[in-house]
Amino acid sequence: MQRYFIKNNQHHGNIIEITGLDFHHMTHVMRMTINSRVIVIDENAVTYETKIINISKNDIILEIINEKQVNNELPIDVTIAFGLTKYPKIEEVIRRITELGAKKFVAVEMERSNLRLNKLPQLKNNRWELIVKEASEQSERTKLMEIAPFLSFQSFVEQSSNYDLRLFAYEESGKQKDYSFKNTLEQFKGKSILVLVGPEGGITELEAKTLITNGFTAVGLGSRILRCETAPLYLMSVISFIKEFSHES
Amino acid sequence: MQRYFIKNNQHHGNIIEITGLDFHHMTHVMRMTINSRVIVIDENAVTYETKIINISKNDIILEIINEKQVNNELPIDVTIAFGLTKYPKIEEVIRRITELGAKKFVAVEMERSNLRLNKLPQLKNNRWELIVKEASEQSERTKLMEIAPFLSFQSFVEQSSNYDLRLFAYEESGKQKDYSFKNTLEQFKGKSILVLVGPEGGITELEAKTLITNGFTAVGLGSRILRCETAPLYLMSVISFIKEFSHES
Repeated sequence: MQRYFIKNNQHHGNIIEITGLDFHHMTHVMRMTINSRVIVIDENAVTYETKIINISKNDIILEIINEKQVNNELPIDVTIAFGLTKYPKIEEVIRRITELGAKKFVAVEMERSNLRLNKLPQLKNNRWELIVKEASEQSERTKLMEIAPFLSFQSFVEQSSNYDLRLFAYEESGKQKDYSFKNTLEQFKGKSILVLVGPEGGITELEAKTLITNGFTAVGLGSRILRCETAPLYLMSVISFIKEFSHES
Repeated sequence: MQRYFIKNNQHHGNIIEITGLDFHHMTHVMRMTINSRVIVIDENAVTYETKIINISKNDIILEIINEKQVNNELPIDVTIAFGLTKYPKIEEVIRRITELGAKKFVAVEMERSNLRLNKLPQLKNNRWELIVKEASEQSERTKLMEIAPFLSFQSFVEQSSNYDLRLFAYEESGKQKDYSFKNTLEQFKGKSILVLVGPEGGITELEAKTLITNGFTAVGLGSRILRCETAPLYLMSVISFIKEFSHES
């Protein structure tokens, strides 16, 4: 059944009102009619099965049939930080890590970033939030991934202290067949992980030193060199595999 | 240092001859000159450090400086079989699983494939082999992933018996929080794995039954529904993580 995320203020008692892009999607793309059924998820991750009871020029009225507490989210909160780089790569990463269950995404301006915070193309947050919404609906998530504001590397490091585990993907660690990632992840019992992946060209030695001084651990992602946009998918896949299929969770 | 895969017949004694696309890449893209150094890997996964000793109109001659046995390959052979679907999705999968270390890729015509074997657009094997070569050079692999010929579902099932482990990604298993994938993978001691991922729309119930009858195990990839082109990346990431960082290997 088709799924849509709504804001809590679209919901009044037993009724949900759909306007805008979702209205367009229901009527023009899905060609829904009176009595069509849809799943709706509100901002508190409550899932409703509903049916259409009215279609007018600009809105659709849904009636709630029943309410479910469904949870398709990872048992831990994962934030992916990604070296600011060209937008198509960022959008690819946002789409895939949404599917793979990340809690939050933040782009960080780093030494080898080929885009600079003070020269950014027009802000794409709206577009990125649409990508998240669409990917969340398709992958049957029950919460939307959060897109955090861009950060300079220094602000990122300063704001990282409230995570239980802080990691960064480091090519040099991969080449040395370093097992710390597997050991760290399997032994981790906390609730939140922050992982930084550098831009094309990687993390500089100076950045690596700063990260380690601030409590981050360097982890290798295997013997091969992954593209910057592949590394977050590897990380999310592995974290979700280890934590979601853990019998303790 | 820039890396190039060569055929064994380009190699004569201490000399390697480069023509065609690699010649173009070295001269026009990388603007290499006499004495530029490059890494070359032959079909036996032998890695040579070389330098350019001659550049003429159509070829470059390299002299071997030294020879290394490097192995950046996964400790097990993984074949990804993928439901025949639109070419951009197939190319995305080929590129990423090459980075992630797959041994072989095969496209399989399945019930929900939106392309049919008897109505295929012109064969793209050359293009796909170029994608593999480029991704292998970038990710520092020492062997090229093999692109197998297309198969019908029936031929695929018939030819699958010589793998130590046969899996298929099945949505229904993911929804049931089935732990079999993690248990199976961690306990697996064999050398070769075949994993089938369905096309958009998934694997049908009948196909699932046929696979199970023929020794395949259904595995879930977590609580969320992954797009068909994301599932192979999840599988390769997880398999490489579990097997590459295993202390026994």
